[in-house]
Amino acid sequence: MENRLKSELVSFLSKIPELSKNDVDLLAENIPVKFFKKGTILVKEGDVCNKCFFVLKGCLRQYLIINGVDKTTQFYTENQAAVFFTSFTNKIKSESHLSCVEDCILIVGEPGSEEEMNEQIPILGQITRKMMEQDFGKTQDELSYFIASSPEERYLNLIKTKPDLLQRVPQHQLASYIGISPESLSRIRKRLMKAG
Amino acid sequence: MENRLKSELVSFLSKIPELSKNDVDLLAENIPVKFFKKGTILVKEGDVCNKCFFVLKGCLRQYLIINGVDKTTQFYTENQAAVFFTSFTNKIKSESHLSCVEDCILIVGEPGSEEEMNEQIPILGQITRKMMEQDFGKTQDELSYFIASSPEERYLNLIKTKPDLLQRVPQHQLASYIGISPESLSRIRKRLMKAG
Repeated sequence: MENRLKSELVSFLSKIPELSKNDVDLLAENIPVKFFKKGTILVKEGDVCNKCFFVLKGCLRQYLIINGVDKTTQFYTENQAAVFFTSFTNKIKSESHLSCVEDCILIVGEPGSEEEMNEQIPILGQITRKMMEQDFGKTQDELSYFIASSPEERYLNLIKTKPDLLQRVPQHQLASYIGISPESLSRIRKRLMKAG
Repeated sequence: MENRLKSELVSFLSKIPELSKNDVDLLAENIPVKFFKKGTILVKEGDVCNKCFFVLKGCLRQYLIINGVDKTTQFYTENQAAVFFTSFTNKIKSESHLSCVEDCILIVGEPGSEEEMNEQIPILGQITRKMMEQDFGKTQDELSYFIASSPEERYLNLIKTKPDLLQRVPQHQLASYIGISPESLSRIRKRLMKAG
């Protein structure tokens, strides 16, 4: 298993053009990669989220429990970072939960170790900054799109932009993620099939 | 006017505890601050957003035009950064517009000048990184909240978290920002007034 984890990490790092072979080796030795079984809860409401997760393999689900009802608010799959920044940066309690929808292989970063690595590989700061800007951009775009669209448009957009999710997560979580009930999602799917 | 702009900038910078008096003076000399009249369009759909805006005074509105319909997707007021990261970081065309809802005094940052300043004031990189993490966290939280809430809950949350917006922007823009029609917002307001 240890070899499998390292090889997933090296495979990911090798795709970053700014890193030299030496950088990749150094990072592969120092970045913690862990395996988590499907169903593992990584962050609970009330925890301070003091780790950065990055998905090498698998799927994470972010959700809120509001009046006992579970509301899915995000999914993270391969090559996506999952960090709850309000909790992480301000060291305050998280309102969201984060759990493994599938068996997962994750980079588990801690703030101190990132700074240490940045000193040894100066380009790393720029790489992570750029990745964060891109993630931030995607979250901005998702918020804009969610506000401006109907549930049916959101479902069609999901098919277009994240088709793998439709196979990987249960229907009721998908429904909740586009802001509707499972029954409404079922009606939308039937309507689209008739029209299609 | 020039003095007014500088004094807004110095007042903002002086509140950042990590900056020395010298840092503030150096930044005040080098950071561009500009005045924009109400109605000015800062970014249009199709433009590459190659500037970072930061609101010292005023209010900005982000919106999408979908099939000719204007959909408000974000407001930015005092001490908030407005950057469309997908466009900015990847140098691609923006899908959103950004305009001034009021007369505005804004920091107008360009990528190159930020790096130059970072070299002269090394702590600056950490400050802007932390601000970005906090902004990212807020956007994550807004997306989660929007997905998980009803229009009435969103309106109540707006009253709680951004009460000044209710006075500063037209009702139809507020309605669109919480994802409903002006008529629906009007009904929600009436219901809440009756409920007392």
